Amino acid sequence: MSRFLSERFCELCAYVPGEQPKDMEYIKLNTNESPYPPAPELMKTIDEKLLGNLRLYSDPECKRLREAIARENKVNLENVFLGNGSDEVLSFIFMAFCDKGERVSYPDISYGFYSVYSELYGLSKNEVPLKDDFSIDPSDYMNLNSTVVIANPNAPTGLCLSLEDIEKIAKSNPDNIVAIDEAYVDFGGKSSIELTKKHDNLLVVQTFSKSRSLAGARLGFAIGNEKLIADLEKLRYSTNPFNVNSISLALGIAALEGREYYDKRIQDIIRTREGSAQEMKSMGFELTDSRGNFLFARHPKLGGERLYSELRSRGILVRHFKKPRIDDYVRITIGTERQMETMLYALKEMLSI
Amino acid sequence: MSRFLSERFCELCAYVPGEQPKDMEYIKLNTNESPYPPAPELMKTIDEKLLGNLRLYSDPECKRLREAIARENKVNLENVFLGNGSDEVLSFIFMAFCDKGERVSYPDISYGFYSVYSELYGLSKNEVPLKDDFSIDPSDYMNLNSTVVIANPNAPTGLCLSLEDIEKIAKSNPDNIVAIDEAYVDFGGKSSIELTKKHDNLLVVQTFSKSRSLAGARLGFAIGNEKLIADLEKLRYSTNPFNVNSISLALGIAALEGREYYDKRIQDIIRTREGSAQEMKSMGFELTDSRGNFLFARHPKLGGERLYSELRSRGILVRHFKKPRIDDYVRITIGTERQMETMLYALKEMLSI
Repeated sequence: MSRFLSERFCELCAYVPGEQPKDMEYIKLNTNESPYPPAPELMKTIDEKLLGNLRLYSDPECKRLREAIARENKVNLENVFLGNGSDEVLSFIFMAFCDKGERVSYPDISYGFYSVYSELYGLSKNEVPLKDDFSIDPSDYMNLNSTVVIANPNAPTGLCLSLEDIEKIAKSNPDNIVAIDEAYVDFGGKSSIELTKKHDNLLVVQTFSKSRSLAGARLGFAIGNEKLIADLEKLRYSTNPFNVNSISLALGIAALEGREYYDKRIQDIIRTREGSAQEMKSMGFELTDSRGNFLFARHPKLGGERLYSELRSRGILVRHFKKPRIDDYVRITIGTERQMETMLYALKEMLSI
Repeated sequence: MSRFLSERFCELCAYVPGEQPKDMEYIKLNTNESPYPPAPELMKTIDEKLLGNLRLYSDPECKRLREAIARENKVNLENVFLGNGSDEVLSFIFMAFCDKGERVSYPDISYGFYSVYSELYGLSKNEVPLKDDFSIDPSDYMNLNSTVVIANPNAPTGLCLSLEDIEKIAKSNPDNIVAIDEAYVDFGGKSSIELTKKHDNLLVVQTFSKSRSLAGARLGFAIGNEKLIADLEKLRYSTNPFNVNSISLALGIAALEGREYYDKRIQDIIRTREGSAQEMKSMGFELTDSRGNFLFARHPKLGGERLYSELRSRGILVRHFKKPRIDDYVRITIGTERQMETMLYALKEMLSI
């Protein structure tokens, strides 16, 4: 740390992304990426003209892609905010709608970035414990008079809240933002986007990183009341108005045109998830009913740390969180059928089945 | 504005990018973009493999590109911070090194974003008047006990400070960051990068947007003491660790390999700038001695607003700032020889020469 860093950041703990080791070729099931490449539509998008036009700034309004997202989600252009990945979108939401010292509530076991953003913006963290079965008790979020952030499906548990419950939470906190992070919604969840038309405090965040195989292109968006979107736009225009580059803008449009391809890949991932979960249950694993592109599992005979490290030594990366309550678990991203067979075979070896 | 926006942003005035009208095809000399496409090296960079790998997150360390930038600038990897455009880099610098209420000093006529960042982060603005000839008086920045931000060459004036003066400013404010924004340095300025090795409070910011024709790819960087870079990294990992997408990372590396091409284009731009400036002087224009890829000019018979709007009606976009002291001026980005001939012809018409 330099002697110049602002005092308010001295204690800040940054987010730690999943490891990306380069020492050998791993089966990478640790960062919830898609095992499938982006839609073939994308390959034709990048031509000499697009590359030549990189000399020009990208469209700060991101109009064509925002229009396409609006059409896809049956909302208006003014309801769509585009970011350089959904992390940036979430960061803007924490920044825009929480005054310093204000309380923000989210599940104690969830996406690790909510805690980081809270610290970054000097907010008071209200980490609401999940129930013993890792589900969210919606009554914990009623009348909190606090900003609420909930991943739905939640990660790393994969469990969902019903839209009825989300609506109740939004209604009971009318003076605060309720943000629903739907990074994994396409793998079996239900989107709250329709509810944003009724509740002016509800924001839904989605990403192109998971179901659309575009983690490397950095595209995320929020949908909500046009006044909320205008506020986010004000902050975007005050930090980095050209936050989404021209190529990612073009890739995003192509991705929305690749609907058919992506629907099939999503079905593949769901089928693989269900098959792998069955197999793991038969080996004695306990799993949550995940609606994400990952499984969350523990085994009575193997700790989470051991599961992680023994899989790693066999060339398979999964994610282990050294945190109370979930220390026994690993989160396993759904790979291809073949990758999952290799992973399942490794588990069998470890259990000497 | 929604009723949820944090009070501290209610009065915030966002940055206004140069206009991008779509009503007709303009000669675009208003946002300091390069008139030349990126180096041919870039065209070969984007292949099926890179696109397929977009399913994976980009490298959060941005290691290969940071290494290439370090080599190019004769510093170490630990001295390079990479951002999603230099605006993002500047935003992180204002955020990291200025406590709330702290004073930040910069020229009253300069890049408009410095004022926006100051407001965004709740800082106290010390806008130091340029001299009457628009040059910076270095003595104004001595012993300020304030963060200092100076564009060198400055924009929209194009005027430079000497490295001696910059070193004096860094030395005389030892407990504050001195950030030098070198967006335009390649068109005739001298870089302060070497000075960052001697002064642990000096940060140099550069961009791929101008001389490397990559405004649409969003790549900017800072070079400085490794502790400063580590602080910036901490904030980056606390907001958006994957802030630079995989394709831009690859394009940046290719751009550094295209040195020969870019050197020629820079020479073209400088030659065109000098020729155009001569011509304009002969028409009675007053110009600053610009070392950027733009001219800053006024004419005793034509106001800045009129220059702007009459050029616009002839299909030529230039930038006019409705600000005291520079209201008479326009900033004209250097285009191709041919674009500049068209612009000069339009000026002659307006002056009935």
